[in-house]
This record gives sequence, C-alpha cells and structure tokens, in this order.
Amino acid sequence: MRVELLTVGDELLLGDTVNGNAAWLGRRLADHGVEVTRSVVVGDETDVIVEAVTAALGRAGAVITTGGLGPTYDDLTRDALAKAAGVALVRDPALERRLHERAEAVGRALQPMAFRMAEVPEGAGLLRNSAGTAPGLRVELPGGVVYALPGVPFEMRTIMDEVVLPELAERAGLPAVERRTLRTAGVWESVVATRLAEVEAMDGVRLAYLPDPAEVKIRVTAAGPDAAGRLAAAEARIRELLGPVVYGVEDETLDRVVHRLLAERSATVAAAESLTGGLIGAELTAMPGSSATFAGGVVAYATELKARLLGVPEGLLAEHGAVHPDVAAAMAEGVRARLGATYGVGVTGVAGPEPQDGHPVGTVYIGVAGPGYSPIVVSPRLPVPGTGREIRAVIRRMTVVHALELLRRALLGLDADAGTGDAREDREDRG
Amino acid sequence: MRVELLTVGDELLLGDTVNGNAAWLGRRLADHGVEVTRSVVVGDETDVIVEAVTAALGRAGAVITTGGLGPTYDDLTRDALAKAAGVALVRDPALERRLHERAEAVGRALQPMAFRMAEVPEGAGLLRNSAGTAPGLRVELPGGVVYALPGVPFEMRTIMDEVVLPELAERAGLPAVERRTLRTAGVWESVVATRLAEVEAMDGVRLAYLPDPAEVKIRVTAAGPDAAGRLAAAEARIRELLGPVVYGVEDETLDRVVHRLLAERSATVAAAESLTGGLIGAELTAMPGSSATFAGGVVAYATELKARLLGVPEGLLAEHGAVHPDVAAAMAEGVRARLGATYGVGVTGVAGPEPQDGHPVGTVYIGVAGPGYSPIVVSPRLPVPGTGREIRAVIRRMTVVHALELLRRALLGLDADAGTGDAREDREDRG
Repeated sequence: MRVELLTVGDELLLGDTVNGNAAWLGRRLADHGVEVTRSVVVGDETDVIVEAVTAALGRAGAVITTGGLGPTYDDLTRDALAKAAGVALVRDPALERRLHERAEAVGRALQPMAFRMAEVPEGAGLLRNSAGTAPGLRVELPGGVVYALPGVPFEMRTIMDEVVLPELAERAGLPAVERRTLRTAGVWESVVATRLAEVEAMDGVRLAYLPDPAEVKIRVTAAGPDAAGRLAAAEARIRELLGPVVYGVEDETLDRVVHRLLAERSATVAAAESLTGGLIGAELTAMPGSSATFAGGVVAYATELKARLLGVPEGLLAEHGAVHPDVAAAMAEGVRARLGATYGVGVTGVAGPEPQDGHPVGTVYIGVAGPGYSPIVVSPRLPVPGTGREIRAVIRRMTVVHALELLRRALLGLDADAGTGDAREDREDRG
Repeated sequence: MRVELLTVGDELLLGDTVNGNAAWLGRRLADHGVEVTRSVVVGDETDVIVEAVTAALGRAGAVITTGGLGPTYDDLTRDALAKAAGVALVRDPALERRLHERAEAVGRALQPMAFRMAEVPEGAGLLRNSAGTAPGLRVELPGGVVYALPGVPFEMRTIMDEVVLPELAERAGLPAVERRTLRTAGVWESVVATRLAEVEAMDGVRLAYLPDPAEVKIRVTAAGPDAAGRLAAAEARIRELLGPVVYGVEDETLDRVVHRLLAERSATVAAAESLTGGLIGAELTAMPGSSATFAGGVVAYATELKARLLGVPEGLLAEHGAVHPDVAAAMAEGVRARLGATYGVGVTGVAGPEPQDGHPVGTVYIGVAGPGYSPIVVSPRLPVPGTGREIRAVIRRMTVVHALELLRRALLGLDADAGTGDAREDREDRG
C-alpha cells in the first residue's frame, strides 16, 4: 500500500515550524511496512487542499493529512474534505455535547468559532482522540481513503497509533518488510558505499546512506519472502565488509555505546579539550546516568592553561605550540591523572575558519590515555567544508565523533584506525 | 513571484531526517518577500522527480530543489533535470579538475562514483558553491526556472544566500517589506506576547514569535508605504515595553553579544559547569576569535571535583550537597580565580530525567563572579518539558541561555532579573 502525507498550514511554508509531524509519520509508517511515497505541504486555502488531496489519491491508496482541524477560520481541512467528497458539513450532536462539557469543566464560555470543531463532512467517520477534544476524520473518496489528523503532535500521534495504523494494517495486508540501521563512525560515505556495492546487489535488499559529520548511518531494508532472513544475511555481510567501523545499531548513538562500555568495565573517563570547547564533555553527559561514567573535564582554551591545569610540559608547548600530537597525548594523560579517571581523552587542533600557528584548518590531534599503556594518538583527516561560517561547527562536531570513536576502540582493544579506509585502500583504488 | 520547494530523498519520506531545509528556505524566502506556495518531498526516483518538477512549474514560476546532488547512485536530481529538459548529462571539465584538486589536498584517491558530481545537464548554469565541492544548478525549463541545491544544509544555505536570492530578487521585482528580528532571553513567550499586544495592533505591522528553550525571537514585519518607518516605530515601542530582555537583533546570538561585550572590555571569562557538561564552554567558543575572550573551563561533574578543581568548600558540599546557590557562587569565583579570568560563570542543578538529592528536575543555580563584587546568583524557573527523553537536552539548553544572559547582564551592570516578568507580573495576571 502506498500512502501520501499532506501537511496543512501556512506556518510550515513560512518555515516558522519544522515539519516534525511528517517525519514522525514517515518513520512510524515505515516501521509498519507502509511506504510513504510523497509528502506535501500546502497553505491554508480550501481549493489548494482539495486539489492536493485529489492529486494524492490519484497516485496512492491512502492520504494522511495533519493540521487544519482547529477552531479558527484558517483551519480549512474539514471544509476541503467536504468539498472533495461533494457533501455538506454537518454538526455532530455528540461532538457538540462534548465541547459544551469541556467548556463547563474549565469554567469558560464557548466562543462561536469553537463550534467549527463539531462540524464534519457528511458521512465521514470519526477517529477517536483520547488525547484531546477534536477527533480525527476518515473520509472515503473515489480514489481511496483520507485520514485527517490534528496538527498538535501529541494528539496526532495518539490517533495514529490507536486508530489509523491498526486500520491501515487491516486494509492493506501489509507486506513483510524488515529494516535495520547500522551506525559507523570515522569513515567516508563514498568509502562505505564502494565497499558495500555487493550488498546493494543482493536480492530484495536496499541500502540508504545517512551521512552526518564524521558518521554514516546505513539503513538496510529487506522485503519479500523471508525478509528477516535476507536482512540478517545483509547485516552479517556488511559487518564483514566494514569491520570495526560499525559501532552500533538503531538509536544506539556513539555516546551511548561509550557510556555502556565504560559502565560494563566500572570505568570512568575525563576529557581535556581545546578546540571543542566543552562539546566532548557535553556529549559524554547527554545520557541519563552519565555521572557513573564521566568524571569531569578541563577546557584548556588558553595555551598556558594546558600546562597549568593539565600538566602539559611547558617545553613541549614552547617548542611545538599547542597543536601537536604529543600535546594531545599529554592532555589525555594529564586529565586522566588529575581527575582520577580510568581513561582520559585529549584533543587539540584548529577549528578555523583561519589557520593557526601554520597549521591548516581541520588539523586535529586526539589522544586517549588508559590503564597500562601509553596514550594512543590519531590525527583524522577532516575534510574542510568550504570557507563558510559553519566550518567551526562542522570541524568541532567531527572532532567530537572521532574522539568518542577512538575512546570506543581503546575500550574494545581495537586498532585506532582499522577499517577506516585510508592510505592502503586508496592505493588499492588507484591500482 | 510564487516559488515551490522540492526536497528529494528517501530518508525524508522515511522520517530519518526532518525537513529542516524546507523550513529554512521558507523562512529565508519569506524574509525576502517571496511566497512559498507548496513544499513537496519525493523519494530517490528519477521519473518521480521529473513529474514533481514539471507539476510544480505548472503552478509556480520557480522551483528550488534540495538533495540528490551527491556522488552515490541514489543521487538522481541531476539525471531528472536532464530528462525534464530533454538534454544529456555532460561532464564539466572545470568541475572534474576541482574534484581532483580536492582529493589531492586531502591525500585520497577519487572513487569512480565521485565523478558523478562533475556531471551537469547540458546547458545548465552552475551556481557557485563556496562551502563545498559540488555547485548548484540552474536549469531553465518551459514553465520556469529550477534551482537545484545540495541537501547538505550549510552548502545549501551558502548557495541560496550568495547566488539564488540575489537572482530571484532581480527576476521578481520584490515588494517593499521590511523585517527585523529582535532576540530576547529569559522571558516566557506568553509574557512577551501579552506585553506586546499594542504593537500587534499597529497599522501594517505583524509580529511572529519564534520560541526556543529560554529564548523568544520576535519577528517584526512591516509592509506598505513607509515600511521602514513603521518598522522603526514598532521596534522602538517593543524595546520600551520589553526593556533589558532584548539582547540582540537578527543573527546576533547571545554568545556573540557576550563575546563582543567581553572584547570591548578586554575581559575574559571562565566557566565552571556541572549539569551542562561543557555546553557553556562550547557556546562561548562557537565564535571565531573566541580565544581572546574565553580562557577555559572546568567540568566538575563528580561532586568531589567541585572541591578539588574549583575550591568549593567541602563543608558546604557536605551540608547542602552540590545543588545549592552558594555552590554556584563558589564555582563561579573558583574558576575565575584558578583560571585567571576577569569573569567566572558557575552552574549546578538537576538536568533530569530523575530528581537528585531531593531537588526536582529543572532546579538550577547560576552564579557569575566578576571584579569588585560578590558573585550574583539566580535560580531561573525552568519549565520541565513533559516526561520524555528530551528533558535533559532542554533543561541543559535553557541553563546555557540563562547563564549567558546573566553574564551579559553582569557585563552591562543590569539587574539580574529586571524585565523577565516573574512574581509581580504573575500576580497582576491573577488579579
């Protein structure tokens, strides 16, 4: 079954509101094996809504609308659906009674426009709204069915889960589709995609790449007979091909993985930051319960603080400046020792937009210190995103991801850069 | 001029990505007086993109697409535009050279699929991308013009601002509309809206409220004859009615204002954080040039580190625990002294989702220490956003805003909570 989404509201076209409802619906439907093939936003105009609904039902068997069901005169979804069905709007006595009861319960008089919420296109079905006042509507049109839901996210989600999804499942005899998202860090999208070419060719398997700074999420979809088996086979092959760069699945973010690995070892980590300004600490404390695994951090932004607060040798700073692999190592070891943590992370580098002390933007050194070994240091090659203002934000975010990934590898005893696809792989590509 | 947006990508239909690009574009175009009349999302299928572009140009004079310009085989916008125009895809030698140069600069070989990014529909115009590798495209079709932009937000935004908006303005002869955004911190949206009722009634003036955690942006739009004069009058009255809660205009974020105020005074700040985990330091280093005003920070997440790293009296911590106004004051003073900064900020509190040591979620104390006075401490009333997972993120973000706002007020010698509309205003509301 193909479904289209229609979101109604001028505020979405003006960009005052981001269309989170469409994202939530797309995800929810995908999780239930229903394919959303198009998502449209239109403004508060009856004729435009009528046209959009009609066009959508020419392509798909069902349309889910959100918005335009409130009491004000720019809420026009009801009117549009009545017009599309060629019927009148009629006042539903039960809905009218409910409005009166609600108003009495909060001791307010009903405004005349409130009665609009008791009007429904003649013959429409009411979708029970256990989270609010106005129900959703089901309108059967020649081309298929329209489910009209309110724009208030909580109400929309409630009606969707309690009423619409069970109905769609029954109507559609849904195909077996299995999905899973694998998460990778520290490797480029093009490298991932090239390595996984053979998986893309597997029968009934589809891959989508969702890149973030220094991360790539791989969404694997398997359909048809034995979808679950196909998905498992695809995942197993992907893990063979990518090796240790796969750090988690589904919503298991890198900070969660690191938190879990630390908790399993009853270990803690401390962070010594410069260019990231505190973002590594912020990431390591995003999880509830992070006080069990994160001791604290030092942001040594001024160079002399690297010596004073972290014990980085002054001679090292004098000779090489702050941007140097040995400085990252000394920061990691220093913060670990001074804060009494099991592990220490240290980062130094150039976030831009200008080069610093002769080092180009994107030069970053990351050190991880731990029990029983000398600090590991990596210098990821960060691609510099142009010359715009957002360079700093992207370089800083990539640095956070690489730092957490190095910590994860240290915790698991993996090589610092195994599988990330660098010099060796490049040479193979050339040859 | 009517413009439609077309966003391309399975990940948007699946809800893996929220359509922030469409919201940004809608906003940007509205700010320039251009009306977005529809916004459509389709998946990665050439024929569907062709159909959607063609249908959009049947209704509007211009279409802006985002997404589908990357190197992988599911990036199909180029192919679709060539098909819609009835031309071939050709490889652009200058683009190809640029790809090689970029690859050499980072010491990597080009994957074969990367060359897709050098292909353009024959006759298409290239839109300069100063923020990335692949340019945008301008394709003239019978019904109007298509601007194809990458899906990576900062590249999309750069090309839009530098190339597309000036072109559209020239093509369209835009109406006289003046807009300005005033930024406030630490005050609730309902308080702002109630105070500004008389401005909403001013002739030809429209207000829109854009709330963020602990911030409200007020977008003032004036239209018609003497739009600039109307805008100035509205702004003046808003500033009278709101007083010191207006901290900046347009893209002058709170961290920029604080950075400027510090720089003007040749002063520096240091941050002592707990629940925010480093976010205050991260915010104070988001600006290029922040090393002149930000000394560094200490994230004392574990309670004993508050004593050891910041000199918070152990007796105070033993008696009251870590969540106490005197602890915030001592953290601010401690980090100021130990890092040798002009100002110190200290925050302690409960980010949730669970209460801590008997303090409810959202209990936050913020201290600012500076030269010649005892630390100021405030405890903003943070509204707890429901019971979901995002409580921590929102509480932490609100804490950052309140901390920067208190620092701004300290720098300007303003009262810590003048004009934020608390107990007194609530009483008036009740009465």
